Amino acid sequence: MANTYDFGLVGLGVMGRNFILNVADNGFTAYGNDLDEEKVNALIEEGGDANKVNATSDVATFVQGLSTPRKIMLLVPAGKVVDIVIDGLLPHLDKGDIIIDGGNSFFTDTDRREAYLQEKGINFFGAGVSGGAKGARKGPSIMPGGSRDAYQHVKPIFEAVSAKYKGEPCVAYLGPKSAGNYVKMVHNGIEYGLMQLTSEIYDLLKKAGGLTNEELHETYASWNAGRLQSFLVEITSEIFEQKDDLGDGHLVDKILDKAKQKGTGKWTSQNAMDLGIPVPTIDVAVSMREISALKEERVKADEIYDRPTPETVVKGSLTAKAEQALYFAFIITYAQGMHQLADASKEYGYELELGEIAKIWRAGCIIRAALLADITEAFKANVGLQNLLLSPSFVDKVQETVGAARELVAYGATNGIPLPGLSNALTYFDAYTSSRLPLNLIQAQRDYFGSHTYERLDKKGIFHTEWDE
Amino acid sequence: MANTYDFGLVGLGVMGRNFILNVADNGFTAYGNDLDEEKVNALIEEGGDANKVNATSDVATFVQGLSTPRKIMLLVPAGKVVDIVIDGLLPHLDKGDIIIDGGNSFFTDTDRREAYLQEKGINFFGAGVSGGAKGARKGPSIMPGGSRDAYQHVKPIFEAVSAKYKGEPCVAYLGPKSAGNYVKMVHNGIEYGLMQLTSEIYDLLKKAGGLTNEELHETYASWNAGRLQSFLVEITSEIFEQKDDLGDGHLVDKILDKAKQKGTGKWTSQNAMDLGIPVPTIDVAVSMREISALKEERVKADEIYDRPTPETVVKGSLTAKAEQALYFAFIITYAQGMHQLADASKEYGYELELGEIAKIWRAGCIIRAALLADITEAFKANVGLQNLLLSPSFVDKVQETVGAARELVAYGATNGIPLPGLSNALTYFDAYTSSRLPLNLIQAQRDYFGSHTYERLDKKGIFHTEWDE
Repeated sequence: MANTYDFGLVGLGVMGRNFILNVADNGFTAYGNDLDEEKVNALIEEGGDANKVNATSDVATFVQGLSTPRKIMLLVPAGKVVDIVIDGLLPHLDKGDIIIDGGNSFFTDTDRREAYLQEKGINFFGAGVSGGAKGARKGPSIMPGGSRDAYQHVKPIFEAVSAKYKGEPCVAYLGPKSAGNYVKMVHNGIEYGLMQLTSEIYDLLKKAGGLTNEELHETYASWNAGRLQSFLVEITSEIFEQKDDLGDGHLVDKILDKAKQKGTGKWTSQNAMDLGIPVPTIDVAVSMREISALKEERVKADEIYDRPTPETVVKGSLTAKAEQALYFAFIITYAQGMHQLADASKEYGYELELGEIAKIWRAGCIIRAALLADITEAFKANVGLQNLLLSPSFVDKVQETVGAARELVAYGATNGIPLPGLSNALTYFDAYTSSRLPLNLIQAQRDYFGSHTYERLDKKGIFHTEWDE
Repeated sequence: MANTYDFGLVGLGVMGRNFILNVADNGFTAYGNDLDEEKVNALIEEGGDANKVNATSDVATFVQGLSTPRKIMLLVPAGKVVDIVIDGLLPHLDKGDIIIDGGNSFFTDTDRREAYLQEKGINFFGAGVSGGAKGARKGPSIMPGGSRDAYQHVKPIFEAVSAKYKGEPCVAYLGPKSAGNYVKMVHNGIEYGLMQLTSEIYDLLKKAGGLTNEELHETYASWNAGRLQSFLVEITSEIFEQKDDLGDGHLVDKILDKAKQKGTGKWTSQNAMDLGIPVPTIDVAVSMREISALKEERVKADEIYDRPTPETVVKGSLTAKAEQALYFAFIITYAQGMHQLADASKEYGYELELGEIAKIWRAGCIIRAALLADITEAFKANVGLQNLLLSPSFVDKVQETVGAARELVAYGATNGIPLPGLSNALTYFDAYTSSRLPLNLIQAQRDYFGSHTYERLDKKGIFHTEWDE
């Protein structure tokens, strides 16, 4: 047989093309497949040496050109397309071959596909890839789940192409079945929370402190040089510098304030509710994208209602407090996401190691942040940690910054600047750290109108009262 | 044929027994069915005259004892049981008979059952019933959806047994398919929001004002005599009076602060996310029940973290502000729920009339409130109203009370008293009434890392930028 390639990739869009070039850069030979001849030719041209990188639009040729067990990654849109591609590959595959879905597939779809392919002797991986187009090219964070044995075949390639944090690869075998897609989903949920927080703090700095785009750039850049160091804070600082090519001034001011979503944040919130795990900062980030989409209603409502004119705050004091509050709220958002992962691991049998997950998020992915090194250590120190807030190493970080969150939430409420992410981070903290909450009243109400019973603080058992009216 | 009964009911638990006795009180003859002989005998005994109310454990006897078209209501637990009961009835039914599911079935289950039964010539209704055990007995609010023609057979009975608001029955044909179950689901979502709000305001009054249970009773009772008049405020005032039969003092202080849930609030939030409609006050009410369940973690966290000692506030001023803030947040919660219904109506083809829905909620159901008369008028005045906040009749109500919400959210944030429902009502208001939100930054971030494109404020089209780094 002629020369065969080490790694196959279906879907030569920007992510796929970049990923395959990354594979080739790392000394593996790679073969691409796409129905679109233009994309096939573009890759062949960009790849240069066809012995290292090649591509074809013919599925049979593609599969026959791969060394066994074949390792075929799909970077195609989540949904029906994944099933169609799998069914197109199947007649050409041999037992023991490996298909890796690198898209944001919903985790139950991955479980279904894995079971379907297992019957046919094919290994299936759901492996979320984060880092955007640039990450795919230069080193993404990869979150694979599936068969542990089959992972051994994929491991050398993934470890080579992934981002590195102090030399350690940002990829690890995460668990069976849809563990990888689930972790990627929660990654994106956290991403929604962090993006909402960076955006509302921008609003606050602008309205309360009157910061210019240049000052906003400097502020976020200085934060990125400290404990808030993170990809999202970094690109935010850069966004404020970007000039508008189509007009005067800064581009950020020209962008329509309707944020789109592709569903992974929503899935995180919806599934957290199925698990019974509170992730209110992520929930409200989803809500805010929805409210942003109601632009026409907002314009009408703005005309009808008065809101306070924000009281001006001294810039230096404001930015210092904003830095503390943002750090606080970032911690809470990661805490909520990790909490969800801990519970999902039990519910779905993923056997996740949260320390490993935080570890592979330290570089390459969109939510990479200096904080993740601390989170990695917290979960490595206590593998059974229920919530990041219960880690001794986080108490001081939270205690020291929550005061600024209190001040800014109070300021936002008083001055009509919506800070829903920060507010929900704070009320989550205040509720989670309350040994007594007023939900005894809710149990009383439920028993009153629906005879739903209640428990007591002082006696074991289930109680019902015939309430006096 | 012997005497036949006007109305059949399967499931003689407390709700079913009460509903059937209510039917009989209103001059219709009624026949009950339950597998449990004890429940059958209990109803026969309580019903008195077997010509008016009777019961049997035998399904064939039950069905044959009903006049045609048969009207058979199910008050059994949502889920598999509904399917089992339907399949048990089917062999005995004739074309044109009517089955009414009175439980909290998930709306897609109702759609599936309706399609299944339609093939067999049987009419199926999903008809949510609200009002608890007492409502079922004395007059509930009933939310039926299904075939408009078949509803004519059910209408006289439902109108007779339902609660009345100034003589008008709290039942109306709501729309096709699962319209009734959907409306009941959102009713329960609103209920979650209102319950969370009453409970957190209780916490505030207790911690900030030092109100005793007697004072809390008086406060809620006085509110119930004003614009906050509502079933939930009324029973809350009564709950604070209830003495503990098993010990000293008031019962409310002995109830464990872990609130349970049966899922309808969660479904409301999850489905709102599918629709893309923001209901953050309902979302966070679900989150708070989840946090409340984490009692052991909360106790640990409380030991680790310091929270501020609440600054004492003068009682009179506090209760006046709390009344305003609660009224504000109630309005916002109804606004969110109605918004969801408006969108669901389009998405699922329900053709809902929001004015009719608010109208049948004015009495009988758990969320009945003086406010619903105003909401009814707002939607009757403008059937295409997108959001209650855009109704001219609500502007003053909101404008006059939002200031108190601002003060109390600020107080809660500063003093460590979690007011998540109120906070989310306020940030929802502040975001919904903002013609400009900072989500332009989120679109910039998405375009930066994922080439997701953006729109502009000043030009039509879809744009992408190669961002400088």
